[in-house]
Amino acid sequence: MKSLLLIAHGSRREASNEEIRELTIKLRQHPSNNADNTSCAFLELAEPSIPEGIQSCIDNGAKTIVVYPYFLSKGRHVTEDIPAEVARKKLEYPEIDIFIAGYFGAADEVVDLLAQQTSHALKP
Amino acid sequence: MKSLLLIAHGSRREASNEEIRELTIKLRQHPSNNADNTSCAFLELAEPSIPEGIQSCIDNGAKTIVVYPYFLSKGRHVTEDIPAEVARKKLEYPEIDIFIAGYFGAADEVVDLLAQQTSHALKP
Repeated sequence: MKSLLLIAHGSRREASNEEIRELTIKLRQHPSNNADNTSCAFLELAEPSIPEGIQSCIDNGAKTIVVYPYFLSKGRHVTEDIPAEVARKKLEYPEIDIFIAGYFGAADEVVDLLAQQTSHALKP
Repeated sequence: MKSLLLIAHGSRREASNEEIRELTIKLRQHPSNNADNTSCAFLELAEPSIPEGIQSCIDNGAKTIVVYPYFLSKGRHVTEDIPAEVARKKLEYPEIDIFIAGYFGAADEVVDLLAQQTSHALKP
């Protein structure tokens, strides 16, 4: 059983966290999604935390957990903070396969989508 | 003359800021891009700042500046911090048309790209 855990930064603005939860529902229902379970967690300022999110996946029977950093660039959150949180949970559950996928901004398609969006914004 | 100014958060990790600068070059060269000038600025932790970025657009002859928040969710940075920086510059240059476009994460296509990326990550 494979779980997908989307990690967002988290915001003091609760509507922003809610936006991530709604995106997670859309992702769960998306025809391309091949995870058995799809949920989200937050690095800071919102709940569930990353350890709580991983724990829920395990409690729901996950044997593989793909932690997906929903971040645009490879700052400290992606390189240090998320790996540190995940590492602690891996130590606690060595029998579960928990791995961190490439972050969202690393996708080549991001520049195409960005160019499409900005060109709409610039239209006369 | 229309300028596109991509706004990223900025990071203590300089490689992350460099990643945004490289993305800006790709965006500048993208066939869909219809801006006369394309540059980037950072909300914090990196240079140029938003006021500096807007000033460069003006110095380069921009009459219209589209400020594009390269952010995934509508947190305080998108709702308050970027508008505050832009508002100050608009007061200084009332003759220049400076406006803030919708942020990146608001695009409907984001969930499709996200589903595509996460499904790759989950492949057996």
